[in-house]
Amino acid sequence: MSQKVLIFGSVAFDTVETPFGKRENMLGGSATYAALSASYFTSPVIISAVGKDFPDKYRRFLRERKVSLENVETKEGKSFYWKARYGKNPNEREVLTTCENVLGDYSPNLLPEYQNVKYLFLANNSPSSQLYLLQKMRAVEFVLWDTMDFWIERYPDEILKILPRVDIALFNDSEAQQFSGEFNLLKAAKKILALGLRRGVIIKKGEHGAFLYTPSFVFSAPAYLLEEVKDPTGAGDSFAGGLIGYLAGKGNISERNLKKSLIYGTIMASFTVEEFGVEKFNRLREKDIEERYQELKKLTQF
Amino acid sequence: MSQKVLIFGSVAFDTVETPFGKRENMLGGSATYAALSASYFTSPVIISAVGKDFPDKYRRFLRERKVSLENVETKEGKSFYWKARYGKNPNEREVLTTCENVLGDYSPNLLPEYQNVKYLFLANNSPSSQLYLLQKMRAVEFVLWDTMDFWIERYPDEILKILPRVDIALFNDSEAQQFSGEFNLLKAAKKILALGLRRGVIIKKGEHGAFLYTPSFVFSAPAYLLEEVKDPTGAGDSFAGGLIGYLAGKGNISERNLKKSLIYGTIMASFTVEEFGVEKFNRLREKDIEERYQELKKLTQF
Repeated sequence: MSQKVLIFGSVAFDTVETPFGKRENMLGGSATYAALSASYFTSPVIISAVGKDFPDKYRRFLRERKVSLENVETKEGKSFYWKARYGKNPNEREVLTTCENVLGDYSPNLLPEYQNVKYLFLANNSPSSQLYLLQKMRAVEFVLWDTMDFWIERYPDEILKILPRVDIALFNDSEAQQFSGEFNLLKAAKKILALGLRRGVIIKKGEHGAFLYTPSFVFSAPAYLLEEVKDPTGAGDSFAGGLIGYLAGKGNISERNLKKSLIYGTIMASFTVEEFGVEKFNRLREKDIEERYQELKKLTQF
Repeated sequence: MSQKVLIFGSVAFDTVETPFGKRENMLGGSATYAALSASYFTSPVIISAVGKDFPDKYRRFLRERKVSLENVETKEGKSFYWKARYGKNPNEREVLTTCENVLGDYSPNLLPEYQNVKYLFLANNSPSSQLYLLQKMRAVEFVLWDTMDFWIERYPDEILKILPRVDIALFNDSEAQQFSGEFNLLKAAKKILALGLRRGVIIKKGEHGAFLYTPSFVFSAPAYLLEEVKDPTGAGDSFAGGLIGYLAGKGNISERNLKKSLIYGTIMASFTVEEFGVEKFNRLREKDIEERYQELKKLTQF
C-alpha cells in the first residue's frame, strides 16, 4: 500500500551559473528537489522552514505537485540562500555563498498526525538536527540518510550515532573515501555498512552511476547518458527523492523494489539536470519517466 | 561457427611496481593479454615479433592456452621492454621505460593461410603498421581497433584513414575526449562514430565500466567491482581480447552478441588485474568466467 514520505531538508533560493547560463533566486533546496522527485510516486511531506521572503508562487508550484507544506514553518527573516558556479566538468562545483538564514537555528517540528509516517528521508543536514527529528518519529520503518563532507569532517561521532538508526546511507564517492579511509569503493562500502546500517550503503559516482551494497546483494545502477547537463544542482537530492518515493509508493522494501528504486532515482536525477533548477518539473510526466525506465533496461540488459 | 581471431600487437617483457609488490621481466604485451583472454572463447593467433632473448617457458605458456605463435617472428635483438609504476589509484600510471627493441622497425608478416581469417584485433600500434596489416587481409569481416594518446597526438590523419575500415574502435575516456574535442563522452562517441566507423565506438571508463555506442543502440557495461587491483597492466587488452574472442567464438555479430561481448571483455579484464601480469591465466577456468557472468547479471538486472 502506498505510503507517505517525510523529507527533512532545505527549501531555498538558489543562484546558479553554468556554461549554459545564469539564474538568480530560483526555487531550490534539498527538500524541494527530493519532494518534487518523490511526488511522481507518492505523497511527499516537507519538513523545513522558510523566511517571510518566500514567495507564494513557489508554494503554489510545490502544491501543484501535491507536495505537503504543512510542516514548513514561515519564520521571521530570510530563506536559506545558496549560490554556486559550475565549470565545463559538471563535477567541478564552486560554492560561492551559503547563507543559512532561518535554517541556521531551526529545530524541526512535526505535526502529530505525521509522527506515524513510515518513510523518512533525512537530506543533508546537521547530524544533531537529524537525530532530533528521528526521536520524534513513532513508527518509522525506512530511513534514507544523506550527508556531506562538512559534517563528516566536523561531526563523525554524531554520524556514528545516527547510522544504526538508518536503513540506507547515501555517500558520493569522495565522501565514502573520506569517511571510511578506504580508497577502494567496495571496501569503503563494506566498512561503512559494518558501522551498523540496517540495510545498505549507496555510493554515488556522479556521471558514472551508483551502486547499492547490502549484506545479501550488490546492485549497480548505470548512469543515464546525457549529452548536455545544463545545471547539476539537485541531482543527488532528486536521486534520493525518486528512490524513496518509489519505495514509499510501493510500500514494500523487497530486493527487487530496492534495485528498481535506484533506477528511478537515476531517472529523476537525469531529468533534473537537463534544465536549470526545478524547471524540468513543469513539464515532466509519468510517461516520460516510464520511457526512460525502458531505455535504461535496454542500456543494461544482456 | 567458431572463427579464429588474429591479434596484432606486442609480445613483451614487463617490469611493474604496484602497492602490492614488484615483478621483473614478466611475460607481457598487448597481444599477449588479448590472446590469453580470447583463448577462452576461440583460437587466437598472435602477429608480432620477439627477440632472441624471449624464453621458451613463455612460448610454452602461450601454447598451452592454444595461442598460435606461427606468425610471431624471432628477430636479432631484444624483445619489447616496458616498465611502469602504479600508485594507490590504479588509474594513475607512470611509465618509466618503453624500449621498442625488435618491434621498432617491425612490419607485420602473415602466413598465407591466415590471410583469410575474418576476425582481427589491431591492438595499440602505429597507425601505419595497422594499415599495412589491414591491406594484407583478404576476407576480414570484423575489425576491432585500439590506439593510445601518443598516436592520437602525432598521427590523427592516419587514424582518420583507418577508421572507415574498422568495425569497432576502442578509446578510454580521456583519449575519446582528446580525439573528439568533446568533454561529454556521449557527444565524443557520436562524433567519433561519424568519422566512418562501420559499427560503433566503445568508451572505456576504467573502474566505472564501458559503453558501446552504435547508430541503433547504446549498451552500458558495468565494472566488475573488485576490492583489490594488484596490477592494472593489461586490463584494456584483456577487455579487447575477451570481447573479440567471444564474438569470433560465436562467429556472428548480432546486437545481443555485441552486448554480451562487452560483458565477457569486462570479466576477462577483472580477472587479469587480480594478479600480477598474466599470472591469473595459470588457474583460470571456463567455469570461473561463467560464475562472474552470472554475478554481473545479478549486479545489473532489475
